[in-house]
Amino acid sequence: MMSKINENLKNNKIVLPKPASPVASYVPYKIVNNLLYISGQGPFDGKNLITGKVGIDLTLEEGQKAAKLCAMMILAQAKEACGSLDRIFQCVKLGGFVNCDRAFKDHALVMDGASKFLISILEDKGWHARFAVGAPSLPLNMAVEVDAIFEIK
Amino acid sequence: MMSKINENLKNNKIVLPKPASPVASYVPYKIVNNLLYISGQGPFDGKNLITGKVGIDLTLEEGQKAAKLCAMMILAQAKEACGSLDRIFQCVKLGGFVNCDRAFKDHALVMDGASKFLISILEDKGWHARFAVGAPSLPLNMAVEVDAIFEIK
Amino acid sequence: MMSKINENLKNNKIVLPKPASPVASYVPYKIVNNLLYISGQGPFDGKNLITGKVGIDLTLEEGQKAAKLCAMMILAQAKEACGSLDRIFQCVKLGGFVNCDRAFKDHALVMDGASKFLISILEDKGWHARFAVGAPSLPLNMAVEVDAIFEIK
Repeated sequence: MMSKINENLKNNKIVLPKPASPVASYVPYKIVNNLLYISGQGPFDGKNLITGKVGIDLTLEEGQKAAKLCAMMILAQAKEACGSLDRIFQCVKLGGFVNCDRAFKDHALVMDGASKFLISILEDKGWHARFAVGAPSLPLNMAVEVDAIFEIK
Repeated sequence: MMSKINENLKNNKIVLPKPASPVASYVPYKIVNNLLYISGQGPFDGKNLITGKVGIDLTLEEGQKAAKLCAMMILAQAKEACGSLDRIFQCVKLGGFVNCDRAFKDHALVMDGASKFLISILEDKGWHARFAVGAPSLPLNMAVEVDAIFEIK
Repeated sequence: MMSKINENLKNNKIVLPKPASPVASYVPYKIVNNLLYISGQGPFDGKNLITGKVGIDLTLEEGQKAAKLCAMMILAQAKEACGSLDRIFQCVKLGGFVNCDRAFKDHALVMDGASKFLISILEDKGWHARFAVGAPSLPLNMAVEVDAIFEIK
């Protein structure tokens, strides 16, 4: 029987990307007790990294799509870490960094691209605490970077 | 009998604001095990949001007041989450983002507005680890954003 | 008998700095359950703080050295918190903020200065999840700020 999470992925025609290898000397996730810490993920769809500053190089909608891609990669890493997404008990927290300039104000709307995706797939388990802030630049000029904490079982 | 925390609020003439609803698709707090994660809170006193860049649009003192308002909102969310502030065992960590420009250096002094408030109300339980950093911009141009982790019982 | 961690420190000719006192109203670390939260640490070698923006005032190599100094201070704080570094079970997560401008792209390489140091000393226990982002400015104009979570026993 297909689990509800996998059913949601299928119904939304979501194919999770291959979990990205870290570009440097760290690991994509770490488990301590029943907490799963996911490293900051970029908007990488498996082929391309979405780059540029939201509000300048990218529209708000493109920024939201980038945030969604970060969340897809977060789920891909969670699946890699847990074997199955059914081990996710709840998403605890997202930390969202938006590559933007001093006049940008729509960080929350950008991060909604990530948040809404997680809620659409994980349903009640997808709601999370979060912060959304600006960054003057991000690694490799990525548009958005999001890290996460999940409670797993 | 009034608890020490409520007594401190009263003696300092602090009325906590109504906990703010998230402006986007997330929740204000999440509990996992004995940890309470509070989402990034802005300097919202229930009526107005303090906006602008500290060191440019706002003085250091105004930035400190903004950070204090973030901490008041954090306590308001903690009370909402726990029913009573007496369930707070300790404040574990604050993450502080100051809306500022490249020449700003007083992030620690700004964040002291939040830290000192929590210590004044929670006393020994209020001391916390923290980071304080700059952000080129924050949601809705808020002056400061602070998130928190508490240990609760 | 010298522990492996102390042996690694000795073999790498590393003398940990005296743990720095917070420059403001917070504590350098907090323990909750088996988690040790270390406050954001700057590149302070006990005498001087490395300041400036990486990519502008500092070369990439100088930024990496600054990140390494942050990690040395993190270990110094962990030792102070635990009495002995042998109580470290694993490094769970680093949060890395690089003082830089809008065109900077090498945040991951800078933070490797911290990550590689921890792995060189803690070996398998040193691998961690992390994020690396830019900040337009940091307290006292420090070049890098890094916070950490460890699992301790």
